[in-house]
Amino acid sequence: MPEILDRAALRAYAEESRPEFEKHLKTLVEIPSVSMDPGHKKDVEKCAKAAAKLLEKMGAKAKVKKTDGHPVVLGHLKTGKKNKTVTVYNHLDVQPAGGPEWERKPFKMAVEGDRYYARGATDDKGPALTALLAARHAVESGVPINVRFIWELEEEIGSPSFEKFMRKEAAKIPTDSVVVSDTIWVSRTKPAVSAGLRGLQGAILRLETGTKDTHSGLTGGAARNPLAELAAVVAKCVDAKTGRVLIPGFYDDVVPPTRGELKWFRECGFSVPGFKKAHGLTKLRHQDALKVMKAIWAQPTFEVHGFAGGYQGPGVKTAVPPWGEAKVSMRLVPDQTPRKALQLLRKHVRSLNRDVRITDESALAPYRGVTTGPYAKAAADAIEFAYGKTPAVVREGGSIGAIVTMEKTLKCPITFIGLSLPEHGYHAPNEYYDWGQACGGMQAFAKYFELVSGI
Amino acid sequence: MPEILDRAALRAYAEESRPEFEKHLKTLVEIPSVSMDPGHKKDVEKCAKAAAKLLEKMGAKAKVKKTDGHPVVLGHLKTGKKNKTVTVYNHLDVQPAGGPEWERKPFKMAVEGDRYYARGATDDKGPALTALLAARHAVESGVPINVRFIWELEEEIGSPSFEKFMRKEAAKIPTDSVVVSDTIWVSRTKPAVSAGLRGLQGAILRLETGTKDTHSGLTGGAARNPLAELAAVVAKCVDAKTGRVLIPGFYDDVVPPTRGELKWFRECGFSVPGFKKAHGLTKLRHQDALKVMKAIWAQPTFEVHGFAGGYQGPGVKTAVPPWGEAKVSMRLVPDQTPRKALQLLRKHVRSLNRDVRITDESALAPYRGVTTGPYAKAAADAIEFAYGKTPAVVREGGSIGAIVTMEKTLKCPITFIGLSLPEHGYHAPNEYYDWGQACGGMQAFAKYFELVSGI
Repeated sequence: MPEILDRAALRAYAEESRPEFEKHLKTLVEIPSVSMDPGHKKDVEKCAKAAAKLLEKMGAKAKVKKTDGHPVVLGHLKTGKKNKTVTVYNHLDVQPAGGPEWERKPFKMAVEGDRYYARGATDDKGPALTALLAARHAVESGVPINVRFIWELEEEIGSPSFEKFMRKEAAKIPTDSVVVSDTIWVSRTKPAVSAGLRGLQGAILRLETGTKDTHSGLTGGAARNPLAELAAVVAKCVDAKTGRVLIPGFYDDVVPPTRGELKWFRECGFSVPGFKKAHGLTKLRHQDALKVMKAIWAQPTFEVHGFAGGYQGPGVKTAVPPWGEAKVSMRLVPDQTPRKALQLLRKHVRSLNRDVRITDESALAPYRGVTTGPYAKAAADAIEFAYGKTPAVVREGGSIGAIVTMEKTLKCPITFIGLSLPEHGYHAPNEYYDWGQACGGMQAFAKYFELVSGI
Repeated sequence: MPEILDRAALRAYAEESRPEFEKHLKTLVEIPSVSMDPGHKKDVEKCAKAAAKLLEKMGAKAKVKKTDGHPVVLGHLKTGKKNKTVTVYNHLDVQPAGGPEWERKPFKMAVEGDRYYARGATDDKGPALTALLAARHAVESGVPINVRFIWELEEEIGSPSFEKFMRKEAAKIPTDSVVVSDTIWVSRTKPAVSAGLRGLQGAILRLETGTKDTHSGLTGGAARNPLAELAAVVAKCVDAKTGRVLIPGFYDDVVPPTRGELKWFRECGFSVPGFKKAHGLTKLRHQDALKVMKAIWAQPTFEVHGFAGGYQGPGVKTAVPPWGEAKVSMRLVPDQTPRKALQLLRKHVRSLNRDVRITDESALAPYRGVTTGPYAKAAADAIEFAYGKTPAVVREGGSIGAIVTMEKTLKCPITFIGLSLPEHGYHAPNEYYDWGQACGGMQAFAKYFELVSGI
């Protein structure tokens, strides 16, 4: 097949579309589409409508589809039934933002040099817009490809309504492949494609021992202390020093990385100082790069995200609290399942403390990606074309619940072209996206659409 | 010595003074003198001024004295230099109040039947006012006694400025004895006098491992989790199931209750169901009454009052927090000292986790009271006179830092006439005081002043 999109023309298109990119990114990030917060429900809907409008502006058909939860935006840039179809998945909902660490207003886009600061800029509105502008250009340039868009608005809360939605909708949106753009490079100088993602099982461990705060002088010693008991439970769920999960049977289904994967890890250019800097971490459990990579990509975890109940203000208020909660989650790797992880946790906690009640939260299956075959090759080639660098094959430590659902319902290969950098700050304060990643990303996606049109 | 105050006249006085009592209690409790909160500094001063005005209204000389922290109110009802002097200690600062468990406004007095609901009603403004009205009556009735008042406004934060203040002031306020009214009966039907109080050492255990929240998918496994590490430390400081403190050497200086004390405990009428009901506790560590009494009166503790850092909102936000704090305290019994307890804690925590930093908070020495001699007898006789019941001799699980200071600086015997009931709710929501305790308390205090005038 003759090349349609040449390097110089593609670069020129990307550079020319910068004002347009910035204008639309501003529109999207300034809508606080925080899916976790019921107070932002209207904003999530507003964001869906703005996104549909944007799809239409780019020549696509677009619909805001209802689900049991937040809506899904579907788009379709058509070129003809005889052509292949590729579906781009992104999400437009965002994590909560605010607090003293934010140096700028989180829902006001601040352009500083090549950087675009705002909650959602890199996770995942910037990459969504990048892929859209690339698709428009590919189609307008005559690439024989149909491009569908699935823009979810519940990703940050574990996609609770997405599976039901896709079971109903999948037959109406057939596709030959899916490309997901919600993953992260190893570093600015090292693009990456994903060989898998971790899953997740969240849970709340709650213990009630009274009905009100009591004076620790008057009751202390006889009153049960729910926070001390939960601390003891947590200490028996994870060895905090090493990260080793202590729940019996927890590792039974863990498939260790293959020799091939470990080779990719070693060659991927991961740097421990770079990782620490990107995430603002002053201390790590491991110093060795391979150990760190295994820990974040290929091993499961048990985390405490917070203890609720009791006193959190300045100083010490010496009350015995009547209840406590440990907010925990387990990241899971293939072939663990959220259901079994939750069962093992329940059993273990019951054996430690019968009065602790467990509520399950988000459950996302881990995912093992395809790293060979024409789609994987097209993704790697497109990235190399755009950035001049062979992408590393790594795993992703995070979870995207929608992927397992799309694989089940759309029944097609799924590849990853991520555009975010570690320092962009997924879920972190002062999140940003940058023009370098957007400009290269447009070229990579356009080339990818061209390459898959011929598969 | 002929009896000056007869039973019938005393009771009549108490009943007649009810409107006056309610009026002044309202004035005091409606000033939110929360010593812990810098935002209430002016209210604490306002309360001191209102208290001084009240003392003057009752015929006493009064002064608001500055300290390095909140002021102290001194009062003096004089009858003549040849007469004995007794000093009444109370405090007029209160614990913070608010939150969904408060069924009424905490700083608005609600009179419901015999009950006076408000923060500070029983701890310790109600008892202070009770003793004042009793003193006025005793003096006006011709009891040859000088009554001094020390009303502190820093008790709830561990009396940080009181020792320095008393070292300077003690010589100017000589006294033959002190009576403290800030303790609690065993139950409504069982008055109590205290044979000792527990001490306290508060501390904050802080661990920082990063500079911002990170996405647990991206960093989890390699990032250290400060809350999980603090949970492990706490789990090795206390066996939460039994309450046994696990810090090596912690029990070395604990003097177990004597056989005599255990006999008093057994005879004091303490009831486990009553204790649970008074404090709203649904579950206890021990079911046996003597074990509960030992645990709250005669044994030290290690409590976690709260874990700060991380996420406390609804659901689970899957971030790895950059820092965590465990807010802890140890109640101490004779002959433990706050200084040694803190040293042992520091050493133990350092051996568990070198990165945890410890800040010490309130330190109050435990106190062993005098249970024999003329003052203890006068207190017991006065209580029996007023309520028709022999008081039990128990220990107090709480701590009053000022007592050790007064013993050192005023160099005189200290006795306790407490008026609060367990169900009044020291430090708890919906705190109240009641007319039964105030009415009996006035008679008990007046009689006590008469009895000690003859010692």
